[in-house]
Amino acid sequence: MPIKIEHIAIAVTDMDASLAFWRDALGLTFTGIEQVPAEESEIAFLETDNAHIELVRPTTDSSGIARYIDKKGPGMHHICLGVADIEAAMRQIADAGFELINETPRTRDNGTRYAFVHPKSTGGVLVELYEPAAS
Amino acid sequence: MPIKIEHIAIAVTDMDASLAFWRDALGLTFTGIEQVPAEESEIAFLETDNAHIELVRPTTDSSGIARYIDKKGPGMHHICLGVADIEAAMRQIADAGFELINETPRTRDNGTRYAFVHPKSTGGVLVELYEPAAS
Repeated sequence: MPIKIEHIAIAVTDMDASLAFWRDALGLTFTGIEQVPAEESEIAFLETDNAHIELVRPTTDSSGIARYIDKKGPGMHHICLGVADIEAAMRQIADAGFELINETPRTRDNGTRYAFVHPKSTGGVLVELYEPAAS
Repeated sequence: MPIKIEHIAIAVTDMDASLAFWRDALGLTFTGIEQVPAEESEIAFLETDNAHIELVRPTTDSSGIARYIDKKGPGMHHICLGVADIEAAMRQIADAGFELINETPRTRDNGTRYAFVHPKSTGGVLVELYEPAAS
């Protein structure tokens, strides 16, 4: 099963300060900020040569990402792994005894599908599985 | 300045349990475990299609990685960014006002050079810069 790192998500409290590092000091290509009201957050997208960096800032104090920052502090939040067949990947993980947060893949508006593996199951790493939309 | 994600390092407490996830359940290619006495740790190396995953386990209670786990719990530890010219990258980061842990690059036995950016400076993310050995 081919797997690649699709993106690394970073929980941030100060978007301008984070962009000053990732965009301005490192020089990564910044492709915009998306508001995600459903998750009470906004996400800035940056490109490296082989994967994305996503900066996720809570827009409310009660959002999941705000609670994560309260508990752990800002920093790396999850790893997203790109897979060709998300059902096969999920089955393989569940069959090996690891716990998925989502029992079936969720679908974004753009057709991509995703599911999360529970960090309690992986030694503290929140892992997103991601299947690109069919082209 | 071209930048890619070279690896993601994950702090683990139970190497067998972590390999059961990354190697066995996900099916990443496992290329071995290296003992790193100087850092009182061992590192398991796994390959995705575009970057590595490194699982870092402390071998003493007093190692840096053990203290990290005591404070933050096991999970993502740092992002390593591959750059073509580490001095240029370090200068660019320092000139932008961000704090480097290493003032000059360190060199590993295999000729690769590396330096870390202080997580206090980047909003909680420990960033390693990495320049491959000259071929």
